[in-house]
Amino acid sequence: MTAIQRIVSPEVAEAAPGMWSNCLRAGDVVYLSGLTSRDREGRVVGDDEYTQAATIFRRMDHLLAAAGATRGDIVKLNLYLTRIDRREAVWRARREFLEADGARRCFPAATLVEVSSLQPGVLVEIEAVAHPGLGGRPAELEVAA
Amino acid sequence: MTAIQRIVSPEVAEAAPGMWSNCLRAGDVVYLSGLTSRDREGRVVGDDEYTQAATIFRRMDHLLAAAGATRGDIVKLNLYLTRIDRREAVWRARREFLEADGARRCFPAATLVEVSSLQPGVLVEIEAVAHPGLGGRPAELEVAA
Amino acid sequence: MTAIQRIVSPEVAEAAPGMWSNCLRAGDVVYLSGLTSRDREGRVVGDDEYTQAATIFRRMDHLLAAAGATRGDIVKLNLYLTRIDRREAVWRARREFLEADGARRCFPAATLVEVSSLQPGVLVEIEAVAHPGLGGRPAELEVAA
Repeated sequence: MTAIQRIVSPEVAEAAPGMWSNCLRAGDVVYLSGLTSRDREGRVVGDDEYTQAATIFRRMDHLLAAAGATRGDIVKLNLYLTRIDRREAVWRARREFLEADGARRCFPAATLVEVSSLQPGVLVEIEAVAHPGLGGRPAELEVAA
Repeated sequence: MTAIQRIVSPEVAEAAPGMWSNCLRAGDVVYLSGLTSRDREGRVVGDDEYTQAATIFRRMDHLLAAAGATRGDIVKLNLYLTRIDRREAVWRARREFLEADGARRCFPAATLVEVSSLQPGVLVEIEAVAHPGLGGRPAELEVAA
Repeated sequence: MTAIQRIVSPEVAEAAPGMWSNCLRAGDVVYLSGLTSRDREGRVVGDDEYTQAATIFRRMDHLLAAAGATRGDIVKLNLYLTRIDRREAVWRARREFLEADGARRCFPAATLVEVSSLQPGVLVEIEAVAHPGLGGRPAELEVAA
């Protein structure tokens, strides 16, 4: 059994030591922390839900690639918003992310809730679970009855 | 390795394309989206916590069956309520769901929190993880020391 | 395949029958419920975030040990606070917990959000996922590129 691996990307700022890891791989599963919209120095970027969500998905993509996974391998997304009435903007960023490469794949399972607060300036936080190597086929072949 | 499978049931309305999947199976794990209380056309039903939670568990049961799993295979439930002081009603619906077939099984691990808002009319949202084929035995045989 | 096992510890009060399990092991994965700061009789203890989080991590440690796992096997933590501006106190308790034995391991992936309410007297709730046997090595050997 391979030990838990911490997955890092030069494009995604890690938290200070003693805090958390952005991404771990344990066996056949990849766990991504609740990611927020930040630049490489860790500063919050974007002051609307669409921009923040799109930035989060770009960061997620870098971490998935470093973990040997693709966006098609994502099985679960948990989305935390401070303003649920802006959810359409987050859905749009998600759809663009998942369809950007033209693949027609099955979308992840997901939960979206409004929380009373996130860290200062943060409007959206998104965490994910992925199973590397299990995604990437056209969705129509994967529908079970 | 079998690719990620999208699991659908005629009893449970899917979201529009480009949104999310209600249920995916990846390897030995089944992921269920945060489900809400809706009819087959996707309209919210029930205006109290008990009715909404009971409806959610019925929908969950259909999806689990389509995934080749049972309610005994659920290992984790995450419950989001807009009014935590109504949690007893949700617990009651959960207990009835898990004990409905007379089996004495170990109950899932669970987290229950109050969030500031869910989608319009939604009082309860519940997501689940299941391991098909690993549940279903009497709970008293499964207690470890 | 081994059936789902309920993991119990004499140090950690279980919920009443028909509610939930604190900890389940399914295959190679351990699921811990959202734990709160309680004594052996189930009463809430501590009226600040640091004390409550430290108590939660002690309870988590007992359950992990009963499951044949260690704190180094934790891959994911979800932290729910009622006052996000007290997050530094929770981070401190987490760091002390994960570094207490002197091991330099990779920290779990994590999500921290403020929710509008938890159960009466509860300021912090923390859930976890662990992969027994996959942690415990020095973090510097586990960093991937």
